[in-house]
Amino acid sequence: MTVISTIGKGRIEAFSDGVIAIIITIMVLELKVPHGTAFADLLPTVPVLLSYALSFVYVGIYWNNHHHLFQAARGVTGPIMWANLHLLFWMSLIPFVTSWIGETRDAVAPVASYGIVLLMTAIAYQILAAMLARHDGQGSRLGRAIGHDRKGWLSIVFYALGVVLSLVWPDIGLGAYVAVALFWFIPDRRVERVLSEDEA
Amino acid sequence: MTVISTIGKGRIEAFSDGVIAIIITIMVLELKVPHGTAFADLLPTVPVLLSYALSFVYVGIYWNNHHHLFQAARGVTGPIMWANLHLLFWMSLIPFVTSWIGETRDAVAPVASYGIVLLMTAIAYQILAAMLARHDGQGSRLGRAIGHDRKGWLSIVFYALGVVLSLVWPDIGLGAYVAVALFWFIPDRRVERVLSEDEA
Amino acid sequence: MTVISTIGKGRIEAFSDGVIAIIITIMVLELKVPHGTAFADLLPTVPVLLSYALSFVYVGIYWNNHHHLFQAARGVTGPIMWANLHLLFWMSLIPFVTSWIGETRDAVAPVASYGIVLLMTAIAYQILAAMLARHDGQGSRLGRAIGHDRKGWLSIVFYALGVVLSLVWPDIGLGAYVAVALFWFIPDRRVERVLSEDEA
Amino acid sequence: MTVISTIGKGRIEAFSDGVIAIIITIMVLELKVPHGTAFADLLPTVPVLLSYALSFVYVGIYWNNHHHLFQAARGVTGPIMWANLHLLFWMSLIPFVTSWIGETRDAVAPVASYGIVLLMTAIAYQILAAMLARHDGQGSRLGRAIGHDRKGWLSIVFYALGVVLSLVWPDIGLGAYVAVALFWFIPDRRVERVLSEDEA
Repeated sequence: MTVISTIGKGRIEAFSDGVIAIIITIMVLELKVPHGTAFADLLPTVPVLLSYALSFVYVGIYWNNHHHLFQAARGVTGPIMWANLHLLFWMSLIPFVTSWIGETRDAVAPVASYGIVLLMTAIAYQILAAMLARHDGQGSRLGRAIGHDRKGWLSIVFYALGVVLSLVWPDIGLGAYVAVALFWFIPDRRVERVLSEDEA
Repeated sequence: MTVISTIGKGRIEAFSDGVIAIIITIMVLELKVPHGTAFADLLPTVPVLLSYALSFVYVGIYWNNHHHLFQAARGVTGPIMWANLHLLFWMSLIPFVTSWIGETRDAVAPVASYGIVLLMTAIAYQILAAMLARHDGQGSRLGRAIGHDRKGWLSIVFYALGVVLSLVWPDIGLGAYVAVALFWFIPDRRVERVLSEDEA
Repeated sequence: MTVISTIGKGRIEAFSDGVIAIIITIMVLELKVPHGTAFADLLPTVPVLLSYALSFVYVGIYWNNHHHLFQAARGVTGPIMWANLHLLFWMSLIPFVTSWIGETRDAVAPVASYGIVLLMTAIAYQILAAMLARHDGQGSRLGRAIGHDRKGWLSIVFYALGVVLSLVWPDIGLGAYVAVALFWFIPDRRVERVLSEDEA
Repeated sequence: MTVISTIGKGRIEAFSDGVIAIIITIMVLELKVPHGTAFADLLPTVPVLLSYALSFVYVGIYWNNHHHLFQAARGVTGPIMWANLHLLFWMSLIPFVTSWIGETRDAVAPVASYGIVLLMTAIAYQILAAMLARHDGQGSRLGRAIGHDRKGWLSIVFYALGVVLSLVWPDIGLGAYVAVALFWFIPDRRVERVLSEDEA
């Protein structure tokens, strides 16, 4: 049973890597080639490039955390596979809202939509993490690591706040999202810490 | 001989994962960025988003079942590789019919075409499963698991019915397809059951 | 040294799988969603669909043969990596010529261009196979398997003939390409045979 | 700890392979299907094809060197993952500047932008290599191999020179970039040499 779960874990990681690699790269297709040949013709691409860079960081964060999560996890089940697909579904909408925000920077609807997709992705990640931890058991490495997940809940609160704020002040909403990116930038130290404690 | 087959199995899985990851992600490119900046400008994308979500579930189901199938399979041959490519060919048409149905929701031709592609994908899956089971032998784990495959044949019947019904009532045809998605949502318990019986 | 080569072989296979998976799937993006909602609106996509199916078979053949080739190969070197990238470069042009032929079926230039890309891909494959065989040595499994490669040279002759014929009769040129697809359809039995002789 | 790092190394390689495979293949989407059916209709695609081939070589070089780098590396950390994502970010902009240069060949801004992206990619690669070497330690295989990295710094100097020169003479700037491609064409012999010394 363990062997089978382990094989499954490998293939779910490989499939997720494939999907995440496509999501992170597909966004660059939104960078339309300028019609002119002057540096000034690049100006309209600057906000698109900035929104691409921001979303690249988000997807990178999720890949990093996904990587740590599955590295610590002992096994996967059918429902966990669906929780993983659910996460990938919301992540796959990031290129869409990134394009919209890139073209219409500080308007209410694009900023709010961007935040809603980030919020749903964050919730999907928490569901996945909780299911993996429950499967491994409370005393397991992952169970202990996820146990006091303040950062995860804090980012959900920030995204939700950002969405609400963006309805009035889009720039402040955007600022709330960027704040989440900054404090997630550091990979999940909690998991790493418990892992190394285990080795010791 | 066994060793070689096993290596081949790994690479056929990796290649299939790559193709399926692209199929599932490429559909999101059909979500065109709204021209306006109001929430109302998102309205035209709603049916496209719904058809994307439905097709995401179908492709997710196939990935899950494909995963279980190859996990149970002992080895692959040249003809099995082609049966796998045949399955991937029909799956690769899902984004195309998804876009059509997303743009023209309840018209006869798009709904019927969507059903035909789903039907051919289901048939291709059955062919692949049968070939893998025959290669492993009737007494094998996979042979026994596939033996009484009621769910597989039932979904082929439902898709065929859905296509016929869609010629008159597209919405009812669509309902038949959704029904298949619902009863395939649960991964192939039969294979899992036989696998765990084997361990026991 | 052997260990290092083996690792390299694994990653070159994974990377090639990724590129080939994208090439085979990207072609489906050329299937433009019909503007109408009638079955008749699908008619213009029929030749595009046929050329897609044909190219899908070619790419599938190369993936199959590539798979057998690297399975038999003992190791890779820097120049072999470049020979592999050279093969992938010509394969990556298949979607481009497929689209052209799909839109303008029996015109001289598209059919000839399609053949030239297939010809260059076939030549690139032979170069890669020869380099892998030379690296393994004449007495090696791969050396013996590749030794009398009539099918490889025959397909190069057929592609070249097809290109020349297409300049006058595009349909006959296309027929020559299809002939190659038919006799490559069966995976490289020579390699398989020598492999199983080795096991015996 | 070592085991965990090794697993991480495998998955970071797989993810990078996925992203690089998409980057190298996505560029071919810029080859627009000609509207006519004559060979002359291919003429406008020639510069696009040439810029595609050049960028294919650059991405191929980075894949080759990335492969050698990680093969020699002992382990990865969180910051190394980010250094790798940083490299992938700049590489992902290569298709964008390739399209621009392909459509407007010898204009100042496209050639300079192309060079800036190549320069930033080269710098990102050096940062990654330095971090991997520092993690392994000075006495390690990678530490010694990277120690006297003249080729890496030389290419940064050439790209920077090319960018400056392109502001006045775009063709000479382009020549400087091509020169870098030529002397990077040979994979990183230094790493290979130290590796084989180690085996001996």
